[in-house]
Amino acid sequence: MTSTNLSRPICILGLGLIGGSLMRDLAAREVHVYGYNRSVDAARAAHDAGFDVSIDLTATLQRAESDGAMIVMATPMPAIPVLLDAIIEHAPSCGITDVVSVKAAVYSLVKERDLQDRYVGGHPMAGTAESGWEASRTGMFTRAAWVITYDHAPGASLRWVALWTDVVRMILAVGADAIPARVDRHDAAVARISHLVHVFAETLAIVGDNGGALAQSLAAGSFRDSTRVAGTHPSLVQAMCETNAAAVVPVLDEALELLHDARASLVQDNPDISALAEAGYSAHVRFDARHGARGESVSPVKITSRPLLRLSPGTPGWVGQLEQAEALGGRIEIF
Amino acid sequence: MTSTNLSRPICILGLGLIGGSLMRDLAAREVHVYGYNRSVDAARAAHDAGFDVSIDLTATLQRAESDGAMIVMATPMPAIPVLLDAIIEHAPSCGITDVVSVKAAVYSLVKERDLQDRYVGGHPMAGTAESGWEASRTGMFTRAAWVITYDHAPGASLRWVALWTDVVRMILAVGADAIPARVDRHDAAVARISHLVHVFAETLAIVGDNGGALAQSLAAGSFRDSTRVAGTHPSLVQAMCETNAAAVVPVLDEALELLHDARASLVQDNPDISALAEAGYSAHVRFDARHGARGESVSPVKITSRPLLRLSPGTPGWVGQLEQAEALGGRIEIF
Repeated sequence: MTSTNLSRPICILGLGLIGGSLMRDLAAREVHVYGYNRSVDAARAAHDAGFDVSIDLTATLQRAESDGAMIVMATPMPAIPVLLDAIIEHAPSCGITDVVSVKAAVYSLVKERDLQDRYVGGHPMAGTAESGWEASRTGMFTRAAWVITYDHAPGASLRWVALWTDVVRMILAVGADAIPARVDRHDAAVARISHLVHVFAETLAIVGDNGGALAQSLAAGSFRDSTRVAGTHPSLVQAMCETNAAAVVPVLDEALELLHDARASLVQDNPDISALAEAGYSAHVRFDARHGARGESVSPVKITSRPLLRLSPGTPGWVGQLEQAEALGGRIEIF
Repeated sequence: MTSTNLSRPICILGLGLIGGSLMRDLAAREVHVYGYNRSVDAARAAHDAGFDVSIDLTATLQRAESDGAMIVMATPMPAIPVLLDAIIEHAPSCGITDVVSVKAAVYSLVKERDLQDRYVGGHPMAGTAESGWEASRTGMFTRAAWVITYDHAPGASLRWVALWTDVVRMILAVGADAIPARVDRHDAAVARISHLVHVFAETLAIVGDNGGALAQSLAAGSFRDSTRVAGTHPSLVQAMCETNAAAVVPVLDEALELLHDARASLVQDNPDISALAEAGYSAHVRFDARHGARGESVSPVKITSRPLLRLSPGTPGWVGQLEQAEALGGRIEIF
């Protein structure tokens, strides 16, 4: 029906930074997309910008049910239980995905409602410290990692495989890299490279602020960059870290052990933090090597350095291929 | 003698990122500037670029002595004792400043040699993760904070006041903001907003790397920004943190207390890190408000938001004015 090969319309619930940007990109690719937003102001702004938007959740879900749309829950975590219950009532046969940054908590709500055969988890690693429809824009997902979960894949129904395939198509349609990862592995990974980063940024911001005017006056680019995400609204940081607490705590413990070792090395008669400095530098070199081909390119065209695996969903061995891609942090395409 | 009102030539020892950029800026302002570099390759590159450069330390110091130059020690900390001893031998009447990022350790070497009346400490808060002459460039200090110490000011000689005044003129000549701070207050401030940032960046880089390919693939802008300074050469991180260990440890303890509180809040039955998230957000808002007028301006002309105090060095009350500027993180001009 469109140039993206999506087999169904897309119905987005929540038109904030992620949901709004997704709607803009899909519409730009001529995908049949419509959405719901609770806030009247944002819905009006989206409508005035030419998008197909409603503030009536029930009517939107009934429409999704009638045209067999895929529903994207693009709200923060706290709204998910209410949305799932509304979907069960008004769109009982639609496939569902989401964009919540923590996947075990969402999957737990899905399993409580026995919706596993209708649900594929998603998480686009994109965004800014801003939020809301007014912050949404086209192109935000270009070459961003967009995790797609596959815990339900072994022995899944044809219906689920078709849904999973359409989620991949949607991800690729907006220019993102589709990265398969099981719920627990996703949550452990983002605890390391996102949630801990937030905890550290808050801490640095507070300690720097404690230094008063002189310290703040001397703060330069390294302090600014390292505390940038402390500008994220506290409720969003809480939603991420608290919902993923089970994965954040062991990662925070790893960090605390390194920091206590550093402290012990600094209180010696001859301070020596070579162990931390050298391990950190080596880790950074590996990160840069891995990411060298993306983001920092001098070319205006963003490219990706993630390994690519092409697979055919539902065929024998495809779960093994997904596990292989997951282990490599690789992206997938379908054929 | 020049448009900058500097009363003497400038002799720079060490033409790396800082020393080289200082030479470029001073020469561009038609200041009489020359320098020494130990590495033949860098000295040749500087010479080929049209600068007055020698690889003979003794001859360079003898020249400084003969024309009454101000000597800028622009090497890392480990070279400072050797340079001070060479200055005592070959340039026994020259005034001295430096650019080392830790000030108590340098001042201790100065006091051991009874050079307080010939020394004014300096620290430009500028640079990149790169180093060496090849990384040097003009304009690097524009609107950067450049700390100038004044511990020796109470009851200082006219000679010292004249030296101090010329250090300010040099700082202003390269477009930096001259921020007065005593040695201990400087070291405490940079421990917060620079050295701790390095320790955190190394730690985040290691914990992220421990997550393997999947975590690294999912790492986005926040991880990249927060670990950027882990790309600094380990020896430079060691030089900063180890030399300033006495100031870094209490600041690290502040951070550890916040992180342990965060951990305790995350292992509760109902995780709640609102205290950290809200305090960090508030600190970030204050930082942004303070820095709002600089760095992020849409104008290509960098401006400063630091309060300005104009003073006349050596006149009654000037030490009190310096303390006032220090407390505000303010910049000074002289008249």
